Amino acid sequence: MVFLRPILAQTQSIRRFSTAKLRDILSKDIQITPSKTLKSIPPNKDLVFGQSFADHMLEIDWNNKSGWEAPRIKEYGNLSIAPSATVFHYGLECFEGMKAYKDRNGTIRMFRPDMNMNRFLKSCQRLTLPEFNKEELLECIKKLLLVDQRWIPSERGYSLYLRPTAIATQESLGVGPSSKSKIFVINCPVGPYYKTGFAAVSLSATSHYVRAWPGGTGDAKVGGNYAPGIRPQMEVGQKGYAQNLWLFGENDNLTEVGTMNLFVFWKNAQGEVELVTPPLDGTILPGVTRDSILSLARLWGEFKVSERNVTMPEVTQAIDEGRLLEMFGAGTAAIVSPIKNIFYKGRDWPIPLDPKDSSSQAGALTKRFADTIMSIQYGEVEHEWSVVVKQ
Amino acid sequence: MVFLRPILAQTQSIRRFSTAKLRDILSKDIQITPSKTLKSIPPNKDLVFGQSFADHMLEIDWNNKSGWEAPRIKEYGNLSIAPSATVFHYGLECFEGMKAYKDRNGTIRMFRPDMNMNRFLKSCQRLTLPEFNKEELLECIKKLLLVDQRWIPSERGYSLYLRPTAIATQESLGVGPSSKSKIFVINCPVGPYYKTGFAAVSLSATSHYVRAWPGGTGDAKVGGNYAPGIRPQMEVGQKGYAQNLWLFGENDNLTEVGTMNLFVFWKNAQGEVELVTPPLDGTILPGVTRDSILSLARLWGEFKVSERNVTMPEVTQAIDEGRLLEMFGAGTAAIVSPIKNIFYKGRDWPIPLDPKDSSSQAGALTKRFADTIMSIQYGEVEHEWSVVVKQ
Repeated sequence: MVFLRPILAQTQSIRRFSTAKLRDILSKDIQITPSKTLKSIPPNKDLVFGQSFADHMLEIDWNNKSGWEAPRIKEYGNLSIAPSATVFHYGLECFEGMKAYKDRNGTIRMFRPDMNMNRFLKSCQRLTLPEFNKEELLECIKKLLLVDQRWIPSERGYSLYLRPTAIATQESLGVGPSSKSKIFVINCPVGPYYKTGFAAVSLSATSHYVRAWPGGTGDAKVGGNYAPGIRPQMEVGQKGYAQNLWLFGENDNLTEVGTMNLFVFWKNAQGEVELVTPPLDGTILPGVTRDSILSLARLWGEFKVSERNVTMPEVTQAIDEGRLLEMFGAGTAAIVSPIKNIFYKGRDWPIPLDPKDSSSQAGALTKRFADTIMSIQYGEVEHEWSVVVKQ
Repeated sequence: MVFLRPILAQTQSIRRFSTAKLRDILSKDIQITPSKTLKSIPPNKDLVFGQSFADHMLEIDWNNKSGWEAPRIKEYGNLSIAPSATVFHYGLECFEGMKAYKDRNGTIRMFRPDMNMNRFLKSCQRLTLPEFNKEELLECIKKLLLVDQRWIPSERGYSLYLRPTAIATQESLGVGPSSKSKIFVINCPVGPYYKTGFAAVSLSATSHYVRAWPGGTGDAKVGGNYAPGIRPQMEVGQKGYAQNLWLFGENDNLTEVGTMNLFVFWKNAQGEVELVTPPLDGTILPGVTRDSILSLARLWGEFKVSERNVTMPEVTQAIDEGRLLEMFGAGTAAIVSPIKNIFYKGRDWPIPLDPKDSSSQAGALTKRFADTIMSIQYGEVEHEWSVVVKQ
């Protein structure tokens, strides 16, 4: 199987579907209708990911006659959508996950939101959902953040998770580009992924189910990438594993873990200390945390940093030879997720955590990435990745 | 790349997600609230697929505490769904396409609805959507048909298209099985796919985009299979081709055409007259029309009938050697869709239609399948595939 050129890189052909003549999103036109009743905010200790939503949401409707309508910030509430809308039938939907933080001065910050807007646009283009001005959408999201700012937790480790979503709302069963669509943004306060320090996870290497394929949509954040992974996760969950380690191809290439990108830190077969993550070949989601980790590691210049394929046999050989140092997942929810074990070919393969501290649930490099990124997210060090939202 | 065992065949492991202790769908509990105002039915000549919906819809809600609630037939109208519902984010949705017909006596008939119910259940199982009693759901659909029977066209070739759909409605952003879901059925009158006789289509062979892969969901009718195919269709459409001919693998195996199954009728390399369609290896949707065509051809016993892989190089060689007889797509919407041309490797390859009639847009076998299946659907010949809906 020859790997194909990632489809999202072909921006020339995407341009042909541009809706440039239609009205674009204009943040200055935003209509804000504050909710009449404000909800009580759950205590930080009670937060469960994605279950409590803030008072407001952002909605922007589009149609193929006039383009984007005026953005609206209004009370969080149900959408009224025709049962024939293509979002219910053909998976015409994509989304982003991003966070807003309060630093110790109470300033609202976002983390590399331009990368989320870039990827959101590319996901929409892949599905022929309408294009939009990324800066203007981000401005609208910032206005939503200001309206809902009391929902942004102040405590370090806590944040307001933002979920921009695009759905097709055309009321027709034809399989084709949608004549109507909607972007909405909802937000919910979330706690740290590991409330009491890291908890390393056991994975089950999975090749029977395949997450993504060349020529598919593995490099776009589209809804259809996620539903098929739930059953595989339940199946390994019943055997005591937290997540699937998604393999690909006859060489059992590592690709992703659950819904996160994957990193291997090891002394490679040539004896070099190296941080490796699978390349953006069209099957890998271009994660913001993934990119941040690669950038930091390259800046530090302390070890080799590679985007290339790694196979499970290479990993198990490194374990056998004592060369594997750390493995972790990377994503917006957890920043990093240390891995302690992989089930593969009928046995469990232990992954080292911290050789200097047997009680530790994460290796030194894993922790260093988490600390460095958090210190940027919470404005403890000045960095261009942390974007202040002005009142 | 080794083909894996189709995942849907593993019924043992599916059982573990069964919700057997919860209340199942019970058609006797159905609550019918007739619409107060009935719409006017568009004239047959104005029907466009999937745009006009009948007066009523069926809705059945499920939750993981008590199971299926009483089915409801009510006025067709918008769904009110939380923006956090997992159907909008993770593609937790699947559907069916089936039709109801009126025969010349005014009797309402369906075509092999048990096959649609079987596949609908398997699609739900693949996505961890709740299971249901297939016979009871079909009973509810029949009741909907009776309530909306004035919408079933009487003219041969016309029918009422039914769209059973399952969506996840859990109001939480966690990626996992949904605690709430909904089945709804909407229906719309549709005309014959070819109003003025067959119109053969030109295809563009597509390997750059891949519709389905082993370990994915190509054999389930899930939403996420469809959205990724829209952009590829637009791209070939701009070059004058009606649909993608989806290839797979390094040998350019034929798989499906657009959203239809694919058949090749030829004299094969061994000189045998043979009807071939790609096998149900996990990447192919198990189409009801596909199965019907195979069954009819095997019953006729006039030529070899095979479910096996065919490659594009085999097809072009057959064209060069004058061995290719006919090619067609097969699906519920069109029954059969004759193919006249395939663009592959930089050139157009003409596919024969009817050598005895240069003005014909379909080959003799293609037409015979269409005629035979229609005569069953409209009750002109008695056949167990045609199921009468009793008043």
